[in-house]
Amino acid sequence: MLVDASTLDDAGVFALGSRGEALVQTVDFFTPIVDDPYDFGRIAAANSLSDVYAMGGRPLTALALLCAPDRLLPTEVLPAVLQGGLDTMTRAGVSVVGGHSVRDPELKFGYAVTGIARRKQLLLNSGARAGDRVFLTKPLGTGILSTALKQGLLDPALTAKLTAHMAALNRAAREAAVAAGARAATDVTGFGFLGHAAQLADASGVTLELHPTKSWFLPRVLELAAANVAPGGLARNREHYSPSVALRATASPASGAIEPAMLDALYDPQTSGGLLVCVPERKAAAFVSALRRRKGTCFDAGRALPRGEASVVLAA
Amino acid sequence: MLVDASTLDDAGVFALGSRGEALVQTVDFFTPIVDDPYDFGRIAAANSLSDVYAMGGRPLTALALLCAPDRLLPTEVLPAVLQGGLDTMTRAGVSVVGGHSVRDPELKFGYAVTGIARRKQLLLNSGARAGDRVFLTKPLGTGILSTALKQGLLDPALTAKLTAHMAALNRAAREAAVAAGARAATDVTGFGFLGHAAQLADASGVTLELHPTKSWFLPRVLELAAANVAPGGLARNREHYSPSVALRATASPASGAIEPAMLDALYDPQTSGGLLVCVPERKAAAFVSALRRRKGTCFDAGRALPRGEASVVLAA
Repeated sequence: MLVDASTLDDAGVFALGSRGEALVQTVDFFTPIVDDPYDFGRIAAANSLSDVYAMGGRPLTALALLCAPDRLLPTEVLPAVLQGGLDTMTRAGVSVVGGHSVRDPELKFGYAVTGIARRKQLLLNSGARAGDRVFLTKPLGTGILSTALKQGLLDPALTAKLTAHMAALNRAAREAAVAAGARAATDVTGFGFLGHAAQLADASGVTLELHPTKSWFLPRVLELAAANVAPGGLARNREHYSPSVALRATASPASGAIEPAMLDALYDPQTSGGLLVCVPERKAAAFVSALRRRKGTCFDAGRALPRGEASVVLAA
Repeated sequence: MLVDASTLDDAGVFALGSRGEALVQTVDFFTPIVDDPYDFGRIAAANSLSDVYAMGGRPLTALALLCAPDRLLPTEVLPAVLQGGLDTMTRAGVSVVGGHSVRDPELKFGYAVTGIARRKQLLLNSGARAGDRVFLTKPLGTGILSTALKQGLLDPALTAKLTAHMAALNRAAREAAVAAGARAATDVTGFGFLGHAAQLADASGVTLELHPTKSWFLPRVLELAAANVAPGGLARNREHYSPSVALRATASPASGAIEPAMLDALYDPQTSGGLLVCVPERKAAAFVSALRRRKGTCFDAGRALPRGEASVVLAA
């Protein structure tokens, strides 16, 4: 085994044979986070694939996991969930080779995913080095928006945008990172942007200096965060990771401080979030252009510094 | 993808690279079938591995799947389940590379398992040929005994025997089958001995002529079956598969008919059952001796014939 749980990496990695290849494996399943069953299937598939992409792996196969009530759901629900998942796996070039279902009062769905990677191309939590540039490949705020959706606060257009965002694959981000020679990445999920950034910084022995802006967030996220619309996980993440995060006092009064709502939103737990990718400085331009060629986007999030006291330093 | 759900094989098989290797993958998880949490973990692990062994695969990695209530269980239960699983995986030489847990009112546990096989050595449901000898590598009756256990009808000694039986690996059976050049196998699980035998016969286009004896069954199974102690799945299996099963009238009145209780017990759904292995006649002795060298045992169950009307013919 090359990577296990000790570095909090996104997936397990197992050396395969003698030719420098490795299996990259992960499993994830969860309860519905959107009302539409087809969309739930798409999001569950994208979310399951993301941990393999985050390690630099190319996903090959998936096993479906379904926990479902016997008779409580309308008959069209389960086929729609499975079809949404299958369509997303097909789009990703992944074969669904099997699955297992059990009776459960509560619907849950997801996949165990197996990918392959050349060992030298693995993207590890421990792979960042001082001087690396840091990029974020999807905007933030799915936890806050999902909470707002449950409270009836989202209009249909933003609901559709949220769904599309969570169903989007991290495939282009992975391909661009591997093509450019990045050595570190993680996907931003339950621990929020700052939680995952702190984990990566600690595993790599660096400090990440990051400069968040409003453009990093999905529409209405900062406004909702200011109104305390937030999932329970946000406060838990903030409590757990804020000791690892320092706020830099700015030299220039004009640049201002980070608003409390934005700081909160940086702890928002994400479902099927983007990748946080660390790229050596000389390869950063190649990463951005490789991502653009694949229709991907990213935010220039900051850089890795020699390890200081804090895991993450936020600069306005 | 080399093997998918259409042949009802035990696992998915995915061609890997150009050197004739394949990934063999399966997932299984279920609710506790014994009271002791450590034993439940052992059985869940053995059961999950079995589908890989049944395809001729050598299991490499496993991802743990845990559905568990938050606070309803005594604190020692979940660690014991996980430890039982981990100890069994370690004994099998399998690395647990990760896992996922979700909250659930009902405890469920199992694994997604990935193995590797040379494509030419795969044991397929469709691989049996007329003339093959048929072997069964574990005795039958776990469904009936588990039902008796729930009804308070088992003494501690037989309970321990049942547990050990379900926690036993099909590793020796797989190694002997591959070493001897077998081409077909399946593991005997939820559809019962006759259900899985019928599936294999249909996929291979042969008829299996089988001659069950009392020695195939765990202690007390036939007595309990005669007293109608049986899981619900037994009657469902009998209803579904009995049209595929013929009883041969015997020429010799001395040989007698198959007792109704034994016929019922042949439909008993098994948890972590043995392998049904089909071996070319000239390799049968090699299979049996390879299995004995690995401390395994088997029953000589019958042979494959050119396809007749029935999938399975039972001869007393």
